[in-house]
Amino acid sequence: MSGNTLGQLFTVTSFGESHGPALGCIVDGCPPGLPLSEADLQVELDRRKPGTSRHTTQRREPDAVKILSGVFEGKTTGTPIGLLIENVDQRSKDYGNIAEQFRPAHADYTYHMKYGFRDYRGGGRSSARETALRVAAGAIAKKYLRERLGVEIRGYLAQLGPIKMGRIVWEEIGNNPFFCPDPDQVEALENYMDALRKEGDSIGARINVVATGVPPGWGEPVFDRLDAELAYALMSINAVKGVEIGGGFGCVEAKGTQFRDEITPEGFLSNHAGGILGGISSGQEILASIALKPTSSLRLPGRSVNVRGEPVEVVTTGRHDPCVGIRATPIAEAMVALVLMDHYLRHRAQNGDVTPGLRLIPPQAP
Amino acid sequence: MSGNTLGQLFTVTSFGESHGPALGCIVDGCPPGLPLSEADLQVELDRRKPGTSRHTTQRREPDAVKILSGVFEGKTTGTPIGLLIENVDQRSKDYGNIAEQFRPAHADYTYHMKYGFRDYRGGGRSSARETALRVAAGAIAKKYLRERLGVEIRGYLAQLGPIKMGRIVWEEIGNNPFFCPDPDQVEALENYMDALRKEGDSIGARINVVATGVPPGWGEPVFDRLDAELAYALMSINAVKGVEIGGGFGCVEAKGTQFRDEITPEGFLSNHAGGILGGISSGQEILASIALKPTSSLRLPGRSVNVRGEPVEVVTTGRHDPCVGIRATPIAEAMVALVLMDHYLRHRAQNGDVTPGLRLIPPQAP
Amino acid sequence: MSGNTLGQLFTVTSFGESHGPALGCIVDGCPPGLPLSEADLQVELDRRKPGTSRHTTQRREPDAVKILSGVFEGKTTGTPIGLLIENVDQRSKDYGNIAEQFRPAHADYTYHMKYGFRDYRGGGRSSARETALRVAAGAIAKKYLRERLGVEIRGYLAQLGPIKMGRIVWEEIGNNPFFCPDPDQVEALENYMDALRKEGDSIGARINVVATGVPPGWGEPVFDRLDAELAYALMSINAVKGVEIGGGFGCVEAKGTQFRDEITPEGFLSNHAGGILGGISSGQEILASIALKPTSSLRLPGRSVNVRGEPVEVVTTGRHDPCVGIRATPIAEAMVALVLMDHYLRHRAQNGDVTPGLRLIPPQAP
Amino acid sequence: MSGNTLGQLFTVTSFGESHGPALGCIVDGCPPGLPLSEADLQVELDRRKPGTSRHTTQRREPDAVKILSGVFEGKTTGTPIGLLIENVDQRSKDYGNIAEQFRPAHADYTYHMKYGFRDYRGGGRSSARETALRVAAGAIAKKYLRERLGVEIRGYLAQLGPIKMGRIVWEEIGNNPFFCPDPDQVEALENYMDALRKEGDSIGARINVVATGVPPGWGEPVFDRLDAELAYALMSINAVKGVEIGGGFGCVEAKGTQFRDEITPEGFLSNHAGGILGGISSGQEILASIALKPTSSLRLPGRSVNVRGEPVEVVTTGRHDPCVGIRATPIAEAMVALVLMDHYLRHRAQNGDVTPGLRLIPPQAP
Repeated sequence: MSGNTLGQLFTVTSFGESHGPALGCIVDGCPPGLPLSEADLQVELDRRKPGTSRHTTQRREPDAVKILSGVFEGKTTGTPIGLLIENVDQRSKDYGNIAEQFRPAHADYTYHMKYGFRDYRGGGRSSARETALRVAAGAIAKKYLRERLGVEIRGYLAQLGPIKMGRIVWEEIGNNPFFCPDPDQVEALENYMDALRKEGDSIGARINVVATGVPPGWGEPVFDRLDAELAYALMSINAVKGVEIGGGFGCVEAKGTQFRDEITPEGFLSNHAGGILGGISSGQEILASIALKPTSSLRLPGRSVNVRGEPVEVVTTGRHDPCVGIRATPIAEAMVALVLMDHYLRHRAQNGDVTPGLRLIPPQAP
Repeated sequence: MSGNTLGQLFTVTSFGESHGPALGCIVDGCPPGLPLSEADLQVELDRRKPGTSRHTTQRREPDAVKILSGVFEGKTTGTPIGLLIENVDQRSKDYGNIAEQFRPAHADYTYHMKYGFRDYRGGGRSSARETALRVAAGAIAKKYLRERLGVEIRGYLAQLGPIKMGRIVWEEIGNNPFFCPDPDQVEALENYMDALRKEGDSIGARINVVATGVPPGWGEPVFDRLDAELAYALMSINAVKGVEIGGGFGCVEAKGTQFRDEITPEGFLSNHAGGILGGISSGQEILASIALKPTSSLRLPGRSVNVRGEPVEVVTTGRHDPCVGIRATPIAEAMVALVLMDHYLRHRAQNGDVTPGLRLIPPQAP
Repeated sequence: MSGNTLGQLFTVTSFGESHGPALGCIVDGCPPGLPLSEADLQVELDRRKPGTSRHTTQRREPDAVKILSGVFEGKTTGTPIGLLIENVDQRSKDYGNIAEQFRPAHADYTYHMKYGFRDYRGGGRSSARETALRVAAGAIAKKYLRERLGVEIRGYLAQLGPIKMGRIVWEEIGNNPFFCPDPDQVEALENYMDALRKEGDSIGARINVVATGVPPGWGEPVFDRLDAELAYALMSINAVKGVEIGGGFGCVEAKGTQFRDEITPEGFLSNHAGGILGGISSGQEILASIALKPTSSLRLPGRSVNVRGEPVEVVTTGRHDPCVGIRATPIAEAMVALVLMDHYLRHRAQNGDVTPGLRLIPPQAP
Repeated sequence: MSGNTLGQLFTVTSFGESHGPALGCIVDGCPPGLPLSEADLQVELDRRKPGTSRHTTQRREPDAVKILSGVFEGKTTGTPIGLLIENVDQRSKDYGNIAEQFRPAHADYTYHMKYGFRDYRGGGRSSARETALRVAAGAIAKKYLRERLGVEIRGYLAQLGPIKMGRIVWEEIGNNPFFCPDPDQVEALENYMDALRKEGDSIGARINVVATGVPPGWGEPVFDRLDAELAYALMSINAVKGVEIGGGFGCVEAKGTQFRDEITPEGFLSNHAGGILGGISSGQEILASIALKPTSSLRLPGRSVNVRGEPVEVVTTGRHDPCVGIRATPIAEAMVALVLMDHYLRHRAQNGDVTPGLRLIPPQAP
């Protein structure tokens, strides 16, 4: 495979460039009979859509998704679902000067070296615009998981630069443009982002994703562990530099007696494992966390070279997010949904006839 | 796939349980003509082998690997390479009491729920004994990468509990049983581990891996990015809870002007990206870091339940590593080697006829 | 995978139903730098297009293909190529009565049983309309193979009902609506088809495909042999019931002394093998032959049942091909092209550094 | 993939050469809980074993299979099943002269050209000895299909050279060394083979395989159709040159009114389709037929060249089957079993929650 397909049984194959006529993807493997409409996808796309606040890029893309196949009389048919999003607001002139330059910390140089030349308009294939399709495809997985299996996947901004979220109030997340779960920090975020925009700089962020209701048994040892596939899917999001499951890097300084999650007849007493043991879901909440680097598209000049190796000063005047982490929450949720859906089908394939007897342990600690 | 195959073009498919007669794997896709002998693999296996110091499990396994196919007259033929390691020192009686118990933080409960029953002897398939095959297969990838392409992959213990390594003296790593690169910390590690063993507890660790000599262009956008596949492969190692590339979670608090790696005609000025931009290698060093949790096999009792849901006290009297991170360095190196080898072949397949012209930028900053 | 992706390195993933808004596919893995335009694809689509003579269905579909991604400044970029064909002439009323009926020898019953319900409009996903995408994708493979590697793939109608072609005059194939290579049989075909249409019946056909210029070494033992993958790809064409390579079923009554292709320093003395030995191309012409069943869409009534199991009489009044074999030649060529392209890349991946020394034997017998 | 893995969910990955120390395979994806012992596999291996009559090669291989993993307390665990068969009777001296020669119609030349050199001992990887693993792996699939799903897979010799079988008496097949179902032809076969052996020549054969009890709904459109995957799997058997499903090449001269299988409330009235419509099983018997070429290992001299391109006379004095078709019946059955098992799991993954309501049509015509 050339890398544009995700999943084994519930697959997403995507195409499209930032400034081409359209982006699209094919979702293959969705079980038949799921009620599905464009509105189901649009609601998730609108969460990711640019230009909804002053804190994200001002590119105006309606990101209106069309379902071209695989749905008949309002239900999935079991055949591939073709999705299409047309590009509307491509201002290619914004990017003219990057045709010959390698923007630092972008994929310009690596695409040039890999392919011999590149579609430089808005980053071409390397643009995060491609993640719109992930969100659209993820919406299908999310819907199946929620409606058929009671699995809920929710993410939030856990940290933005120096600002760490304290409380998690799930209802708050939709009330602010940051996916921030802590009502006490929204104002600090507003102020920080306003100052940052004035400054011309950008900032990193951390996103957490929680999946509840996943039953024990999903995930395939020994390579395709659930945590390994989550790491793959989350690391494949543009700008992600780190992935943690459960206790994550905190385990380095932890002792076994602290980190092992003891069990009583009433359930697990803690969840350092993040809901995955030996690569297989334990029935506890799945916990994943990612780090997103600050965007490198800045109006503060940076040093680089052009295709002839000559020094240039790079200034990005186009429309960009000063914190790509802000819009990343729905993308991260989508990736978790896609991985879980795929592993659900894989589990069903191999273990569809297993009756594991008593489900001994309540899925969550009390 | 049921999860026991790694890679797309250079694949490893493994089998075997901790206390079965043998473990093995099939390495498919190795180009023909590579000189290869069992000694080439054994040298890496011996680095991971248990029982070489008092700080690791005292199980005595020679881990002698046999090449059963794919090599003729001392060279790989291009056909699958079958590898076999016989189990010798299985003391199954050590594990008798776990047949009915779910050890906390092990895969006992999840295997039971996934498959309906499980091979409980020494953890069965979920045992880290399976990683011996990864090291053997990785040795083939390492050899090809080194001899044909000049790529060198080296790892080291970066942190063990509270002890962080300061200096990196590559020659030191082989001189102590910890893969510790800092001669100033070896004694502290000895003392810490002796105290820990006495205490009966275990501890986490961080391992870093560095790959030098990787040319620009390896890695496939948009899902199968080089960093995404590294995250997958490294997270699939037993006990790993976090993966970072380059600057990792440090990017959360970083600004774009700090984190972007500027370029001059003399090369990159920094490497926060860890050698990967847009999922494709940049020619800089590839930097990956992983967190390994403290083992949960402790002689200090822990609470759990048995298969009937009754409370039990679990005490592990078998032979175990008090810090699984100690022996993990060769495993992490192997996983990086396998991913790089696979991506090299994938790159060659698609871009074998690309001449990217001048290689503009020296691979490393001066 | 849910079955809608073909290939390993040069992949085609398709979507779309006969009467949905559009069909499309994603071609992933095309090497960068290939000059490509919509016209390159359209020329092949026009060869397959319905309604070009009185002997095929009168559905009027322009089959105009759009390239949505993966091509920049007239050349492939190495990123996925998105193709789209809009449906224009869907007369769904023609098919209204099949919503509740299972047409004999169609996929109506099997789709109903597999998925629980089905998109019955024009056969939905099971319609041969989907093969338009195969032709479009195949055109990319054909172009690469021809322009970069000198491989030429050509097919022809070898038999239609009782009429067997005698001579093969390559130039003749484009001069008649049957892809018939024998100028002496064109009139007989016209007369046969006119009579058949009057009668209301349909007829089977045999198509041969020849690939010249394939060098030795393509194909992967032991499962993914070149002949095995050709058989898969050709059998996946609607209505195909048999596949032969080289001598095919003629080998059943042949003796070894007759069937082995002896070799002299001047080359092979015969080609019963059809250019493939041990699953790997030998440098001779690749020869494949397929049997296509007569279409089951007839205006002569047939017995069947409806979704309630009640007996019904099925009469097809829609627009259909009385011999689906007539338009199948470009489809068969496309499938051969796609398999060869995929195996070329696979060969290049694994054996890109092999220098097999002297190419001893001229590829063709004199 | 480098071609040595079959299947998507029930996979077989094999290794081994004719004269290496051992052959083996890994069967991944077998559902847990299936009772399985080495005896279950051995019974099938013994059907394929050489040297059981004077009509097959006199190489004495016990083909004793060992299960190395994936089975615990007599049942499959859901983890990979490692199988090993040691080579015992390698007389490599028999083959010494082929190191430098390319035997006509063998894979010697193509392996040489693909890989640059080859393991020439007994044909190395291209030897049909590799099919022993297919039979062993197929035995697992067969057992699951039979015991859990009531699917029975049986094959027979349908034609050997000029001798066509008339009657099919299933009980007869095990009573003669030819897998011949027609008691009236056994003597003719004995005589024909005796004469052939005296002559020093070889002969082709046709094998039919029938699968009964397959429910409707297995198979994935549009590429991975059940018939397409059967064609792939059967064509991947050494010496196979043609594959037919149901009516096969007979459809070329058939009319639609003859070939369509009409349906009444009592069931299908015929089975020209061979049990597959639109790539999906219909509930009728699955019918497949293959042609096997005469072996090219003859003691009658043939012309060829050596690695330096010089003319040589090739005479095969080793032990070979004068009709490879004789021992091919269990291999063909195994391949059908492996494909069906894989498609069963794929169907269960995607459509495990479908309730297609009434199964309207009895699976078989009365």
